[in-house]
Amino acid sequence: MSHPAPIDFWFDFSSPFGYLMAEKIDAVAAAHGRSVRWRPFLLGAVYKHTGGIPLTETPLKGVYSVRDIARSARYLGVPFAMPSPFPVATQHAARVFHHLDASDPAAARDFALAVLRAFFVEGRDISALDTVLDIAQALHHARDAIAVAAGSAEVKARLKSVCDEALQLGIFGSPYVIVDGEPFWGVDRLPQIERWLETGGF
Amino acid sequence: MSHPAPIDFWFDFSSPFGYLMAEKIDAVAAAHGRSVRWRPFLLGAVYKHTGGIPLTETPLKGVYSVRDIARSARYLGVPFAMPSPFPVATQHAARVFHHLDASDPAAARDFALAVLRAFFVEGRDISALDTVLDIAQALHHARDAIAVAAGSAEVKARLKSVCDEALQLGIFGSPYVIVDGEPFWGVDRLPQIERWLETGGF
Repeated sequence: MSHPAPIDFWFDFSSPFGYLMAEKIDAVAAAHGRSVRWRPFLLGAVYKHTGGIPLTETPLKGVYSVRDIARSARYLGVPFAMPSPFPVATQHAARVFHHLDASDPAAARDFALAVLRAFFVEGRDISALDTVLDIAQALHHARDAIAVAAGSAEVKARLKSVCDEALQLGIFGSPYVIVDGEPFWGVDRLPQIERWLETGGF
Repeated sequence: MSHPAPIDFWFDFSSPFGYLMAEKIDAVAAAHGRSVRWRPFLLGAVYKHTGGIPLTETPLKGVYSVRDIARSARYLGVPFAMPSPFPVATQHAARVFHHLDASDPAAARDFALAVLRAFFVEGRDISALDTVLDIAQALHHARDAIAVAAGSAEVKARLKSVCDEALQLGIFGSPYVIVDGEPFWGVDRLPQIERWLETGGF
């Protein structure tokens, strides 16, 4: 039996629905014998090209979305508290992720979940490099080495390349999951992802 | 036992996800002993205030949405073919609806479903008054009387008042369902609507 390709899970660390998907996608994939490749990118870099604006700042929809995000978290049984300020810059978190991911994807995923929970449950300021390093250190990574890597030209270029790839793929929002070429935007597409995995497409 | 208030179902006749909701919401409501008040409005009137643009014309998201709409229809088991041109003006259909609704809400709902299916299954041009009158006539309404009513100042004012109410309620998209004051935007919120009806809120 051949190994199926991993599912690609694109998200921004400041995306509430991205956080909810992060808490769910691995289990959904595993139930169908699939692994997940986590791909954090910078939604702001995409918005520069598309003219998109943060959901909560959209007229009328912004007010609704705050309610909808909290309700969706309750619906999915995921702890959530709307952070403030919101949204925040996420390049430090994304760079540390991609540094870790190059040698240890599982450690990178654990770090990503810890960052998302720090922001969306504990309300910590994940835009600050210090917070990001605190989180990495708590996971037993060497703080100084992580700080050097996060500021390196190589890791900055890697994140830029990931964002370019997102743009090339037409990714306009977070979360964005790709299963065998089929794109699914939003945590509310989880039921469709499950059926796609069950049936191989419908 | 007191009668619970009806669920409010807001939609635009040119909204694909509004069409999908129209095929589902009555059965979901009835399963919980609830009725549905159909409230077609003009999304264009709202977009004038919010700066919204049609989903399919949004950069990147537009390409995705065409695929997502067709897939969502298959997921829900609802017949669907993307009409062209799209979107179209829907004031004639909305006016005839509100004329019928004043005296016979069930007949108005049957008319609305027929219009939605004419557009989203048969690809007929529902922006044309003649098409709308053909649909009404096929449902045994008197074509001439409907034509007069649809052009009357009274019915035009009624639709305008419905659109003003949508704006006052902060409705920014279609479909938009309100259950006991709780708003749900999008056919993908059906599972949350079902849980809300089951539990009285979560």
